[in-house]
Amino acid sequence: MASMESLPAPLDLSHHFSDVTNNREASDVKKFYKYFTTPGMHNLAAGWPHMSFFPYDTLEASAAHPQRFEPSQNANASAHHEHVKSQQAPPASHLKVPKESKDTNALGKIDLETALQYGTAEGLAPLHSFVRQFVRDHLHPNVPYANGPEVALTCGSTDGFGKTIEALTNPWIEHKNSLPEKEGILCEEFAYMNAIQAVRPRGLNIVPVATDSYGMKPWGKGGLADILENWDLSKGKRPHLMYTVTLGQNPTGAIIPTPRRKVIYALCQTYDIIIIEDEPYWNLQFPSAMKKLSTVEGHAMDNRNYNEHGRSSGYEFLDSLVPSYMSMDEDGRVVRIDTFSKSIAPGCRLGWLTAQPAIVERITRITEATTQNPSGFVQVMVAGLIKGQQEGVPTSRKDAKSAEAWELDGWVRWLEGLRGAYERRMQAMCKVFDEGKFVAVVAKGADADSWSMINKVPMYEFEWPMAGMFVWLKVRCDTHPLIGKYGAEKVCAALWVFLTQEPFMCLTAPGLMFAPTDSVRSYAFQYLRLCFAPMPEDEVADYAQHFTAGCRAFWQLNNFDDIPDFDTSMIANLRLPTC
Amino acid sequence: MASMESLPAPLDLSHHFSDVTNNREASDVKKFYKYFTTPGMHNLAAGWPHMSFFPYDTLEASAAHPQRFEPSQNANASAHHEHVKSQQAPPASHLKVPKESKDTNALGKIDLETALQYGTAEGLAPLHSFVRQFVRDHLHPNVPYANGPEVALTCGSTDGFGKTIEALTNPWIEHKNSLPEKEGILCEEFAYMNAIQAVRPRGLNIVPVATDSYGMKPWGKGGLADILENWDLSKGKRPHLMYTVTLGQNPTGAIIPTPRRKVIYALCQTYDIIIIEDEPYWNLQFPSAMKKLSTVEGHAMDNRNYNEHGRSSGYEFLDSLVPSYMSMDEDGRVVRIDTFSKSIAPGCRLGWLTAQPAIVERITRITEATTQNPSGFVQVMVAGLIKGQQEGVPTSRKDAKSAEAWELDGWVRWLEGLRGAYERRMQAMCKVFDEGKFVAVVAKGADADSWSMINKVPMYEFEWPMAGMFVWLKVRCDTHPLIGKYGAEKVCAALWVFLTQEPFMCLTAPGLMFAPTDSVRSYAFQYLRLCFAPMPEDEVADYAQHFTAGCRAFWQLNNFDDIPDFDTSMIANLRLPTC
Repeated sequence: MASMESLPAPLDLSHHFSDVTNNREASDVKKFYKYFTTPGMHNLAAGWPHMSFFPYDTLEASAAHPQRFEPSQNANASAHHEHVKSQQAPPASHLKVPKESKDTNALGKIDLETALQYGTAEGLAPLHSFVRQFVRDHLHPNVPYANGPEVALTCGSTDGFGKTIEALTNPWIEHKNSLPEKEGILCEEFAYMNAIQAVRPRGLNIVPVATDSYGMKPWGKGGLADILENWDLSKGKRPHLMYTVTLGQNPTGAIIPTPRRKVIYALCQTYDIIIIEDEPYWNLQFPSAMKKLSTVEGHAMDNRNYNEHGRSSGYEFLDSLVPSYMSMDEDGRVVRIDTFSKSIAPGCRLGWLTAQPAIVERITRITEATTQNPSGFVQVMVAGLIKGQQEGVPTSRKDAKSAEAWELDGWVRWLEGLRGAYERRMQAMCKVFDEGKFVAVVAKGADADSWSMINKVPMYEFEWPMAGMFVWLKVRCDTHPLIGKYGAEKVCAALWVFLTQEPFMCLTAPGLMFAPTDSVRSYAFQYLRLCFAPMPEDEVADYAQHFTAGCRAFWQLNNFDDIPDFDTSMIANLRLPTC
Repeated sequence: MASMESLPAPLDLSHHFSDVTNNREASDVKKFYKYFTTPGMHNLAAGWPHMSFFPYDTLEASAAHPQRFEPSQNANASAHHEHVKSQQAPPASHLKVPKESKDTNALGKIDLETALQYGTAEGLAPLHSFVRQFVRDHLHPNVPYANGPEVALTCGSTDGFGKTIEALTNPWIEHKNSLPEKEGILCEEFAYMNAIQAVRPRGLNIVPVATDSYGMKPWGKGGLADILENWDLSKGKRPHLMYTVTLGQNPTGAIIPTPRRKVIYALCQTYDIIIIEDEPYWNLQFPSAMKKLSTVEGHAMDNRNYNEHGRSSGYEFLDSLVPSYMSMDEDGRVVRIDTFSKSIAPGCRLGWLTAQPAIVERITRITEATTQNPSGFVQVMVAGLIKGQQEGVPTSRKDAKSAEAWELDGWVRWLEGLRGAYERRMQAMCKVFDEGKFVAVVAKGADADSWSMINKVPMYEFEWPMAGMFVWLKVRCDTHPLIGKYGAEKVCAALWVFLTQEPFMCLTAPGLMFAPTDSVRSYAFQYLRLCFAPMPEDEVADYAQHFTAGCRAFWQLNNFDDIPDFDTSMIANLRLPTC
């Protein structure tokens, strides 16, 4: 691979910027910062409360060691590399962020004086620089445009997506604008609805693309090429955006294999589409799914892009993963959205986005006028966790560095440990679902006295997820004895409510919650999304057994009279909280 | 005053909502939450990582006691009430937020299980409920509409303002929209520019209103009535928004007295204007300024609205303050923006907004699609600070409550202590400025040999600020010996640069940074904003002396040849970081 500097520059895609985004002035705050940072300057300019006014003298935490969870073996690992076993590691260490670090290097200055003061939209220097380095050198070491991508910290994925949409779409108002002006966004057939709901008020066409077990389909009826080639311009512009989750799709758990990814990217080049790639589950690619992926679409293939065709990430774990669209983004048309919600905690409200510098610059202007930067509390606690304890000792002096610092190695180890823990949960759940798939039902003859026969029928079908946190399960309502009486939609609605009742008490996510349009809603009611993340680890199988027991009991019902409130419209209107 | 329930409802102001805001669907997430909170329910629906995945087992802090700073005496206090002296109080206590609180009451549950998980746009229950109670019962106990205002947590004032603007303005695009469609926003003659810059890209008319020592002028040339009565509809709609800082205005330090406030509010009623009132300095009203306020505009008056005309806040300190527009908002046309940036720390990125429920509801829909909620890290650390330590002990048991909890009393005491500390800083700075105002300059005759005379001239003029963090100082460039040679603009630019040089090294905020339009820029260059917040307390006078010494030296210069880079355009283009 060519060195980064000799690669072509990304394309100028500024024609995609919204009117308001084009109007934003370039920031020149940095001119003033030159004076702020002059040693000896008496700052009478900034309206900054002196740090003595902050009521916190330290922030502290009891923090996990990065070895807390046991990893899975990598799919293509030659030998399982050595891990410190979780039982050998001490359970936690004490993290302490002091009021004032003596470190004169901004990248090492992890203290309250800095983190709790006003900051720039770029974010806290030690955190921003860590994320930037991780993204450019380890997560996406092979972005094929000159000087690689830029990153911007966000207040989580929803914030990152909201700002991207603000930067790249003009609102379309029914009584003010004409139909051919209407913009559009492509998404998966079953999609993460919080993103879709965030776009809707701006009046965009929502355009679902057909999917199968390997994610969004480039070809075939309803596939990407079909939609773009046959676009009817009278109902709006051809979509210039795509929203997609490619590594453990929510809700289907699919990974798009590299060859299919290349076709989709080429189509986006042809039709000038910006890809907004949202990847909260990228590190949760399960080795147990890799075999399936390696023989995808009839031929053997290696989806790992790193070792053979470019720079290694430096980590066997990262090298073994299917890379994102960033790794083939020669045009600079990918905006990738990341979050700490799954790798640290959802309550962080901290993430980042990655794109070509000109796009990141425009989004940073939005940040300056809205959130300014993520909370200094979470920035400094995450920086402190990863970059080490800072009891007033300069981090630049290697010997003074705390033994408990995660550093890059620890961060990658933590991500790998999470994958191990989630894979074990996934397996525990899917094993129960596999074993409990069938039920014996009595098929009766036409009148009550006639013969009856016991049939073994499937209650649902599903594939083990390749990645992520979810099992996507299709209810085989057609096998339910009462299908003739109630019809498919009511059987599915009744099942959902029945499962929430004693003694099963299982709350599942109805498929309708993931249907971006009415046409998808017409069949999405048959699906359920089940998550193996929220319960304690040793209760995953038990939760799953409650589910299968509930299904079995439901297939024995003679009528739905005792199920309260199971009308289909109630379920159609349920809205899942963000996740 | 009538009971809150018997008051009239606020007006329906939904005609002010933007198109996109009108398009946002009402949220029905709560339907689903009913199931989440059912005891015994097996949650297989939500994509929530189990709390065992969070790498923090506790969050902790060394936190100040609320008595850390000595208050000022209240202006109208009958007797100085007892304070625990800061030297008597222990310096700090240890705050510890556990992973899992056993408290079953959501309002008392201050733990990581809740704070670091996904939450609702409403925010962390113990923090939201504290803020709501503080706002409704103590900060604005006399809002004159039925059932009082609602609050929404924000990611700081900039975020609160950004969402308010998103809710209440439609973008206007030069090549797409006609001039009469252009919307507008009123602001002070000298204004907080980050707010103005946030509105500009949306294409609004920015309409400054004349101000004097008591803030925005309702009457007179360029006053509010003049602007609204004589509005030229060909250049856009009459502004339907006002952005204003009324309690320690940035940059002028003015407080709008209650009688003037009533006139402005009545004008906003007449012309159907929504008032966006941004008050980061409301608690920094200096008793030393109250005398000036009590004889404002020729007649004696009491600006305290609380005791005489309504409910007391329950605190002498709060009762003694000039109340905001909220206290006269019978229509529900005030959106008040608050922040923890000055009362806790800017890095919190935490604040709230207060308005009638229908406006808060629309803004909450925006929050769901963007920031979701403030970071759980800051929410739980602020909740922990104010609502007490939570080492697994239910807060509902009074006897188990930690001795270190601030509670409402401590929070109000902390705010009062901050005012004391800032007032002492203000006095230290203004004393130096008063004493150093004049300089002796040599006035020379026409030729070098002729007589010369020493004149004592003022270098600047200013009023002691009534509130806030800033001194607004007018440079008397007309007294500078070189005014004839360079002109006013260059003298002021040269002074700004000269002050940043050795040995004075004073960084000040040029007046141009606070000029919202070109016409204000034409005279704003004469002003400087000086802040007494950012330096250590015992260095305020020294910083001020560096400033006055720099001015004196500048008035002695024979030419500006040695001042580097002092051209006016450089200063015109300086942009202050947020503050």
